[in-house]
Amino acid sequence: MQAELITIGDEILIGQIVDSNSAWMATELNKIGVKVKQITSVSDDEAHILTAFKDAESRADLIITTGGLGPTKDDITKKTLAKYFQSKEMLLHQPTLEIVKTIFAKYNAPLLDVNIQQAMVPDNCEVLLNEQGTAPGLLFKKDQKIFISLPGVPYEMMNLISAKVIPLIKEQFNLPPVYHQTILTAGVGESFLAEKIKDIEAALPAYIKLAFLPKLGSVRLRLSTDQPATAAIKAEVDYLIEQIIERIPNFWIAKEDIPIEKAILNLMGQHQLTLSVAESCTGGTISQMITQHAGSSAVFAGGGIVYSYELKSKLLGVNPDTLAKFGAVSEETIIEMVNGALKNFATDYAIAVSGIAGPDGGTPDKPVGTVWIAVANKDKVIAKKFVFGNKRTQNIERSAMAALNLLFRLLKEFHS
Amino acid sequence: MQAELITIGDEILIGQIVDSNSAWMATELNKIGVKVKQITSVSDDEAHILTAFKDAESRADLIITTGGLGPTKDDITKKTLAKYFQSKEMLLHQPTLEIVKTIFAKYNAPLLDVNIQQAMVPDNCEVLLNEQGTAPGLLFKKDQKIFISLPGVPYEMMNLISAKVIPLIKEQFNLPPVYHQTILTAGVGESFLAEKIKDIEAALPAYIKLAFLPKLGSVRLRLSTDQPATAAIKAEVDYLIEQIIERIPNFWIAKEDIPIEKAILNLMGQHQLTLSVAESCTGGTISQMITQHAGSSAVFAGGGIVYSYELKSKLLGVNPDTLAKFGAVSEETIIEMVNGALKNFATDYAIAVSGIAGPDGGTPDKPVGTVWIAVANKDKVIAKKFVFGNKRTQNIERSAMAALNLLFRLLKEFHS
Repeated sequence: MQAELITIGDEILIGQIVDSNSAWMATELNKIGVKVKQITSVSDDEAHILTAFKDAESRADLIITTGGLGPTKDDITKKTLAKYFQSKEMLLHQPTLEIVKTIFAKYNAPLLDVNIQQAMVPDNCEVLLNEQGTAPGLLFKKDQKIFISLPGVPYEMMNLISAKVIPLIKEQFNLPPVYHQTILTAGVGESFLAEKIKDIEAALPAYIKLAFLPKLGSVRLRLSTDQPATAAIKAEVDYLIEQIIERIPNFWIAKEDIPIEKAILNLMGQHQLTLSVAESCTGGTISQMITQHAGSSAVFAGGGIVYSYELKSKLLGVNPDTLAKFGAVSEETIIEMVNGALKNFATDYAIAVSGIAGPDGGTPDKPVGTVWIAVANKDKVIAKKFVFGNKRTQNIERSAMAALNLLFRLLKEFHS
Repeated sequence: MQAELITIGDEILIGQIVDSNSAWMATELNKIGVKVKQITSVSDDEAHILTAFKDAESRADLIITTGGLGPTKDDITKKTLAKYFQSKEMLLHQPTLEIVKTIFAKYNAPLLDVNIQQAMVPDNCEVLLNEQGTAPGLLFKKDQKIFISLPGVPYEMMNLISAKVIPLIKEQFNLPPVYHQTILTAGVGESFLAEKIKDIEAALPAYIKLAFLPKLGSVRLRLSTDQPATAAIKAEVDYLIEQIIERIPNFWIAKEDIPIEKAILNLMGQHQLTLSVAESCTGGTISQMITQHAGSSAVFAGGGIVYSYELKSKLLGVNPDTLAKFGAVSEETIIEMVNGALKNFATDYAIAVSGIAGPDGGTPDKPVGTVWIAVANKDKVIAKKFVFGNKRTQNIERSAMAALNLLFRLLKEFHS
C-alpha cells in the first residue's frame, strides 16, 4: 500500500512557506501502515498538476493533494481534478454551502459569489465535509486507486485526515500492521554509532531495516520492518533494540521517538524533580525547547536569561570579581552561575550556559564557538568546555543540545 | 531559467523531519531570478532516485539534490549520481580528506574507514568543498544542464548554497535582473490589508506584482517585477511602497524583509535603548527570537523565565497577594510583572507575558488561549488581553508575535 502526496501552490515553490503539512500527513499515514513513496510540490499550473497526477497514479494506490482550493483565481485544483476525472458538471453541495454561510455570518462578512463557488463540487466525486473551512475535501475513485484533495490550511487538513481520511483508508485497504522502534542518542556522531553496532547491522535479517537519522547533536536509530508485525517480529525488533542500547550505554537517551528535552521531562517528572536554567549565549533556547511541551510546568520552574554581566550577578549571584578576573565564558563563572540558579531558583537541578555564539566577541584564547556548560544538583556539579564552530545559530543549537545531554547524564547517575 | 529541488531520504517520507531545506533554497534561488518548478522528495532507493533525476532533467536547467550523502549504508546519493552520470571510478579528494581529518581530530574521534570514504568522489564531477562537514558538494554537467548534490545538514547546505552555488549559477546562467521590495506588517490580517490598498493593487501595472505573504501574526507585502530592473522601474516600485505604507501607518513595521524582532533591535539600537523580558507562557520564545540575531546583546539585557509563582515573585517582585487574588493570568499580575522587569533588570523597556498556553490549565472564565501581555517604559505601561485558540504551539507563537508588536508600537510612540 503506497501513497503519494502532492502539494499544489506557488507559495511552497517560492519558499514562502515550509511544507510542514506533508511531514504531518506522512507521519499519520505511516502509523497505519501506509508508506509514502514520494512527496511532490507543484505550481498552480494546470499542465504541471495533470502530469503530477498521472505520474503519482502510476506509482501509488492513494494520492492525497493539498492546497489550491481557495476562492481566488490562482486556486485551480478543483477545476483540474474535474478535468483529470472527466467530470460532467459542477453541483452545489448543500451541507458545504451551509458551512460557508455560517462562517461568513460568524465574521459578519458579506457572502460573495466566489465564496458560494466554494460549495460547488464535481459531479463524480465524494465530498469529505470540512466543518472548519469553506473548501470541502474531495474524493475520486479510479480503478482501484483513490485520489483525495484537501485544503492546505493546516488545521483543516489535519482535521479531515484524522476524522475522515484515516478511517476511510483503514476501511478500503487491507493494511499490514506496522512496527518500528526508535532509539534516541546524543553526544556522538552517526559514524561512531555505526561502528559500535556494525556487526548487529550486518547481521540484520532482510526484513528489518536500520536507519540513522541525525540532527544537530543527536542521532536517532530506527529499526523498522515492512513485514506483517507478528508477535515474533515485534519480539525480534525489541530484542535488537536492547542489543543496540547495550553497546551504547552512555549515549542512548530514550527507546522512543521523542526529543531529548521530553526524555528529560519524563525522567524528572517520574522522580518529582524540578529544573531551572541560567542561559547566557543560548538566550532562551533551552527554555523554549522545554516549555513547548505540554505539562512542562510540573518540572520546569523557569530561570534567568542572563545576557548582561549585571543580570549574571543580580539573578545568579555571580561575583563581579569572578567576571572581571575570568570573564563570563570561564569555568569559574559557569560554576557560580549553575550554583546560583540552584540556590536562587530553588530547584533540584540546574543548567547554566555561557559562551561566545558569534560572529563577534571572540578572542585569540576564547574564539567564537567557545562555550562553557554546567549542570548541577545539590551533590554534584559537572562543568565542561566545548569549542563549536563559527556560526551563531548552530553554536546556540549545539550548546542547547550539549547542555541537555549533560543534564541527562547527570540525572542518570542519580536516578537510573 | 528553471530549477528543481530533489530531497533524498526516507526521513522526510516517513514524516520524521520537515523539509525546511527546500523552502530556504527556493527563497535564495528566487532572489537571483531562478524559478523553482518542482520540489520532489524521494526515498533512499536507487531506481526511484534515478527516475527523479531523469524527470527533473527533462523539465529544468538546474537540479539541486540534498541528502543521502552521509557515511552509512542507507546513504546512496553519491553512488547513484555516479551511476546516472556513468562515472568510471571514485577518486580521493585530498582537500575533503583534510577537512574530514580536521573534524575528527577536533572532536577527538577515531577516523574510521567509512569516514575516509566521505572524501571519495566520482571522477567526472567538480567538487564544491564543504568546509563544515565531511560530505562535499558535487557538481555534474550534462549538455547545458547542471546537477548539484549537497549534504542535507541544514547549515552545511546553506553555506554551500551561499558561498558556492549562488555565485556559480550567476556566472553560468544569464539571469534576469530582479527587483523586489517587502513591507513587514503585524497585527492585522491579509484581507484587512487587501481592503486598505485595493485601489493601489487594482492600478498596478502588469509588470509589477503584489504578493501577500502571511505568517502567524504578521503579513509581508511584496512588490516584485520580472522586468529588467531599470532605474525607472526601481523608482516606480519604491514609490508604490511609500504609497502603501501611508495607508497602514499603524500596521507596518519595516520596509525590508526582516523579522519583527530584528526591526525592534534596529530601532532600539539606533536610540541606544535596552530591553528585558519576563516570560511566563512564552517560556523563552521571545528571548530566543531576539538572541538569534548577532549583536542583540547591545540591546537585550536578558530577563526572567518565570514559569512558577515563586519565580514571578522572586525575580519580578510580583506580590504573592496579587497572584493569590487575581491569578497569574490577569491584568494586575502582568502589570506588576512588566514593572518588576523594568526595575529589577534595569532596562529602558520591558515585555511581560503570562497566559494559558494549554492544553491544560483553562477555566471557564480563563479558557486555554487567554494571554495577558504588557510592555512598558518608565513613562507608560500598555497591558492587553488576548484570547487565542486551543493549540499550545500556536498560542506560544502568537503571544510572542503580539508582544513584539505591542513593544514596537510603544517604541514608535516615543522614538518615531
